[in-house]
Amino acid sequence: MSDDSKRLAGVVRIVGSGLLGASIGLALRQQGVEVILDDASPSARRLAIDYGAGRAPAEGDEPTLIVVCVPPDVTADIVERELESYPAALVTDVASVKVEPLRELERRGADVSRYIGSHPMAGRERGGPVSARADLFVGRPWVIAGHDGISYRAAAALEDLVLDLGATPIEMTPEDHDAGVAVVSHAPQVVASLMAARLRDAPDASLGLAGQGVRDVTRIAASDPALWVQILGANAAGVATVLRAYRDDLDGVIAALDAPADPGSLRVVAEAIGSGNAGVARLPGKHGQKKVFTQVVVLVDDTPGQLGRLLTEIGEIGVNLEDLRLEHSPGAQFGLAEVSVVPEHEERLIDDLVRRGWTIAGAQ
Amino acid sequence: MSDDSKRLAGVVRIVGSGLLGASIGLALRQQGVEVILDDASPSARRLAIDYGAGRAPAEGDEPTLIVVCVPPDVTADIVERELESYPAALVTDVASVKVEPLRELERRGADVSRYIGSHPMAGRERGGPVSARADLFVGRPWVIAGHDGISYRAAAALEDLVLDLGATPIEMTPEDHDAGVAVVSHAPQVVASLMAARLRDAPDASLGLAGQGVRDVTRIAASDPALWVQILGANAAGVATVLRAYRDDLDGVIAALDAPADPGSLRVVAEAIGSGNAGVARLPGKHGQKKVFTQVVVLVDDTPGQLGRLLTEIGEIGVNLEDLRLEHSPGAQFGLAEVSVVPEHEERLIDDLVRRGWTIAGAQ
Repeated sequence: MSDDSKRLAGVVRIVGSGLLGASIGLALRQQGVEVILDDASPSARRLAIDYGAGRAPAEGDEPTLIVVCVPPDVTADIVERELESYPAALVTDVASVKVEPLRELERRGADVSRYIGSHPMAGRERGGPVSARADLFVGRPWVIAGHDGISYRAAAALEDLVLDLGATPIEMTPEDHDAGVAVVSHAPQVVASLMAARLRDAPDASLGLAGQGVRDVTRIAASDPALWVQILGANAAGVATVLRAYRDDLDGVIAALDAPADPGSLRVVAEAIGSGNAGVARLPGKHGQKKVFTQVVVLVDDTPGQLGRLLTEIGEIGVNLEDLRLEHSPGAQFGLAEVSVVPEHEERLIDDLVRRGWTIAGAQ
Repeated sequence: MSDDSKRLAGVVRIVGSGLLGASIGLALRQQGVEVILDDASPSARRLAIDYGAGRAPAEGDEPTLIVVCVPPDVTADIVERELESYPAALVTDVASVKVEPLRELERRGADVSRYIGSHPMAGRERGGPVSARADLFVGRPWVIAGHDGISYRAAAALEDLVLDLGATPIEMTPEDHDAGVAVVSHAPQVVASLMAARLRDAPDASLGLAGQGVRDVTRIAASDPALWVQILGANAAGVATVLRAYRDDLDGVIAALDAPADPGSLRVVAEAIGSGNAGVARLPGKHGQKKVFTQVVVLVDDTPGQLGRLLTEIGEIGVNLEDLRLEHSPGAQFGLAEVSVVPEHEERLIDDLVRRGWTIAGAQ
């Protein structure tokens, strides 16, 4: 993804050599930027340097931009230290909460005219320096959380960094960012984890009935508790606000299910599902548009290359794949590929696939 | 999926020509079974017959097996009517709740020595007769909910039906079935719908931060309210039991987030996420095993055939694809394909793909 349009000038110092820090280092090194890599753990630092993510710090370093990539609960500490150690540098961080670090720095009287928070939306459930990739941020949104204490010019190097990494800068206040991630990331994490917790003591026979629905609802429940304690703790008030409204709705549904024959009970349930319809429809789809696709389900033998052959033939048919999910039935030696296409292409796709010998296991 | 091992003998009568009824009819017709198709709506019946799912009822019909495929709230009515109209036939239904129809039939004094409920786990969010496919049930679990009032021999035709349709019979009591679907299907539907409802009034800017996590959690929130009112109403007590335990956990998390600095608060949050880890790990994986896969994320141009080319090359490399998801970044002209493979194959896959010119955008 590197090209000749590099914007950043000067030396970049990265503090923290986990997945994000090491990935930023790799990407900048590929573009010829001089990168200093530091980490509280000497072995973690050495590992990331071995991977080519930067060089060790040295006496007389003069970075122009410092990117703090450490866990949320030590972000303010490290940002403060960096602001003091490098009085000419712009300092940013990549923590997934933005209000609390800024407030804490202001409380401590740090020079926030050289600090601006940011948040690359490229997190994954797991990760470490060995998973680092130069292209981790390509095409991903990257929030820049400006505040009144920093000038537009002073913050320019951060936008250069975001663009050089191939990400899409999105400007939001720290407050709007934290309210946003509370509703689209942090509350969904709690909701998914608590649903998955209900599966812990369910009988094996019940789990055998699990379909794609519960798998989707609980997928992110596999996330790291240590990280999420920090994230939820740092955005506690915002997340609690969303969860409280959620709990009020849930109480209504439980009361309705406790007395399903009472007048109004079914309406409460219908409105809960209907509100969910309205909410999920607001999520931006592919390319930011809201489109409805048709799903065609195709039977695929569970051997290497079969799925590839299917998708190659879909390409030959000339139909663009909008989405794809795989489903495996317990005990079966084949999978179901759910192929999403625009509705206008459904009939042609099914006809051509059947002609080519594929078995269609459903469409909707 | 048809072969010479057909088990069913005699004529099958299907009542209700929606997705399930029409799909059963199509599959049986393909195997040479005589199928009678009935529906309260004459036009719906004609449509399904046009599609080849069966023939119209006639004077003197003598079905040996009757499959009632109508909405849950009229299932007991129709089963009772069929038991009376065809005193030699075994009657089953495919409603997604099993206790309530049986209880209702017992209350009415129906001849339940010829009734046994069942539930094919092949539901989809939407569907109708035009979406019917003969292979809808292939490889899917199909619960047979036996009870004390019917003999093994009397119920045999239902197991024949399930096997002829290519599904996997799973025997459970009606009570175990309803408790099972409460925790793996009905409660997750409520949880997802209520989370999606929180998105309804969120600012556009917040929705712009949505990633794959919230999309997965809320995907099934697109389900049909009318159908779900019936399902949740018919399994109300079981679903309420799960949701009440869920709500207690949620109250604990909200209280902890209201006072994150209090002793014990972070532990409550950590235990909620940790319990979710334990619960989601219990979901049976591919082929019923619990395996952990490595995800390799590959950049794919958004043009027809590109994804097919990728998967064909993965087949050529000789690595079996365990799972695949596509992710589109808002505004980007390419997608990210997250390919799951066994960890032993990760390094070779990445090396070979890079050698073939693909861009790896991450691995974990």
